[in-house]
Amino acid sequence: MKRIAIFGVGLIGGSFALALRKAGFTGEIHGVSSPATIETAKSMGVIDGGMEAGEAAESCDFLYLAQPILTIIQTLETIGARIRPDALATDAGSTKRLIVETAARSVTGGLFLGGHPMAGKERSGVREAEAGLFEGRTYVLTPADKADLTRPAAAEFISWLERIGARIVYLEPDQHDRMVAFTSHAPQLISTALAGMLADVDGHGDVAGPGVTGMTRLAMSPFGLWRDILRTNQAHVEEALAEIETRLSDLRARLSSGDLELEFERAAEVARRLRQK
Amino acid sequence: MKRIAIFGVGLIGGSFALALRKAGFTGEIHGVSSPATIETAKSMGVIDGGMEAGEAAESCDFLYLAQPILTIIQTLETIGARIRPDALATDAGSTKRLIVETAARSVTGGLFLGGHPMAGKERSGVREAEAGLFEGRTYVLTPADKADLTRPAAAEFISWLERIGARIVYLEPDQHDRMVAFTSHAPQLISTALAGMLADVDGHGDVAGPGVTGMTRLAMSPFGLWRDILRTNQAHVEEALAEIETRLSDLRARLSSGDLELEFERAAEVARRLRQK
Repeated sequence: MKRIAIFGVGLIGGSFALALRKAGFTGEIHGVSSPATIETAKSMGVIDGGMEAGEAAESCDFLYLAQPILTIIQTLETIGARIRPDALATDAGSTKRLIVETAARSVTGGLFLGGHPMAGKERSGVREAEAGLFEGRTYVLTPADKADLTRPAAAEFISWLERIGARIVYLEPDQHDRMVAFTSHAPQLISTALAGMLADVDGHGDVAGPGVTGMTRLAMSPFGLWRDILRTNQAHVEEALAEIETRLSDLRARLSSGDLELEFERAAEVARRLRQK
Repeated sequence: MKRIAIFGVGLIGGSFALALRKAGFTGEIHGVSSPATIETAKSMGVIDGGMEAGEAAESCDFLYLAQPILTIIQTLETIGARIRPDALATDAGSTKRLIVETAARSVTGGLFLGGHPMAGKERSGVREAEAGLFEGRTYVLTPADKADLTRPAAAEFISWLERIGARIVYLEPDQHDRMVAFTSHAPQLISTALAGMLADVDGHGDVAGPGVTGMTRLAMSPFGLWRDILRTNQAHVEEALAEIETRLSDLRARLSSGDLELEFERAAEVARRLRQK
C-alpha cells in the first residue's frame, strides 16, 4: 500500500485515512468525493488531494469504498474493470452480500475484500472523522473465498487493520447480513416503531422516563443512513422482524399466567454479556 | 404531617424520607419494614426507628406505602380501617387502578391518594436511597376524586412534593396505567424479547454494537420488579404489545417498497422531544 484512494471521504472514510496516518502510513492518500468535501478533508489533513474515480482505479494500489451501499455497488460496476491487478479494493458498507456479488462480476483485475467496520458516531461527515474511531471496535471482513486472505494485498490491509486497533471478525457475506439484521437492522426498526407508537399516545412525554427514552435513541437515525441498508437486506430483516413479532405475541399470550421469570433471566444474561465485551 | 410512617424502606421509601428531611421536615419518621432494613435505615439516619404496621396506621398522620404493588394492596386491606380520620395514606406503586380501587374499599377513615414517582436507579434497597431522587422528576398523583386534592392533608403532602423538587402530574388511575403500559411496560417487554431473540443468534456478540446494547439495557431489570406490575396492568400491556406488533408487521410489509422515510421522520421527532424535557 503506497498510493491509496478513499471513495467517500465522510466519517468512516476520513477516519480510516486518519487512523492509517496515525499508525504510521506514509504513502499518498487521495480522496474521491465532492469538491466541497475534498476541500474540507484536505484542509483537515485527512487526504493529500482529490482524484477522479477512474484515475484512482488505474493508479492506486488500495481503494477504500466508504460510500452509501448503492453507491459502492455503482462504483464497482463503473470502475471494477479498471482496478489494477496488484491492487486491493475493499469497502465499508453495512450490508455485504450484494456488494460482494457485484464485485465478483465487476472487479476483473484486482482483489476485492468486503468489509464492515462496526464503528460510528451520532453525526456523520468528514468533520467528525477521528483517528481512533476503529480502536477496539469490531471490523468484519467477508472474503468471497477464504484463500483471498492470504494474498499479499489482503494480508497487508489486514495488518493495517490490526495496527489501527480493530478487532477483526471473519464472516461469510450472507451470514454477516443475517446477523446484522438481528443485531442492528431489526433493533433500529423496533426503536422506530416504538417511537412511532408513542406519537399516538397523548401526553406520553409527561410519564416517559429514561428507560423508554433510551429505547428511542436509535429512532433518531436519519432515514438516509437506512434506505440502502434496508433495500439490500430485505429478506433477513423480514425474518428478524417476524421473529420479534412472534416473541412479543408469545409474551403477550403469557401475561395472564404471569410467569415470565425464565424469559427475564435469559434476556438479562444476554444483556449482561453484551456489556462484558 | 408530624408523625409519619414509611411502609417499605427501600430505594423509594428511603429516598422519600431523606428528601423530606432535606426539605426541612422536622417531625418523626418511622419505618415499617423487615428488622434488617429497619436497622440499616436507622443507622443511615433515614428513619428514627421501626414500628409495627397497625400501630403506624393508628398513630401516624401520614403513611407512605413504598412496597411492591401486591404488598401495598395487602397493606391497605389489613390496616385500611385503622388509618386515622385526619391522616393521609399515599403509595408509590407503579400501577394505580387496583391500588386505588382497593383503597376505596379498605380505607374507611383517612384519605387515600395514589401516587407514582417516576424515579429510580439501577439498584434497589435503602442503601441506594438519596435525598435528591425526586428532584426534577415526574411524580404522578391519581386522586380517586379531584376534590380530594383540596383536603388539608392532601394539600400539605403536595406542598412537600413541590419542596422536594418533584414535577407533579395529575392523571386518572386507569389513564395512568394505560399510559405507562405504552411508555414503560411495553418497552420493558420489547427489550426482554429482543435480548431473548439474540440469545438464539449464535455469535451475536461479535457484531453487536452500542445501538443494540442500549436496546437491551431494560432487559437487565430483575423480574421481581415486574411481576406485580404485569399482573396488575395486564389489559393495557396486552393492548400496547398488540399495537407494537401491528406496527412492526406494517414496517415489515413495507420493506419491499423501501419508503419508510415518513415513519423515520415521525419517530425521530418523538425521540428528539423526549430528550428536550
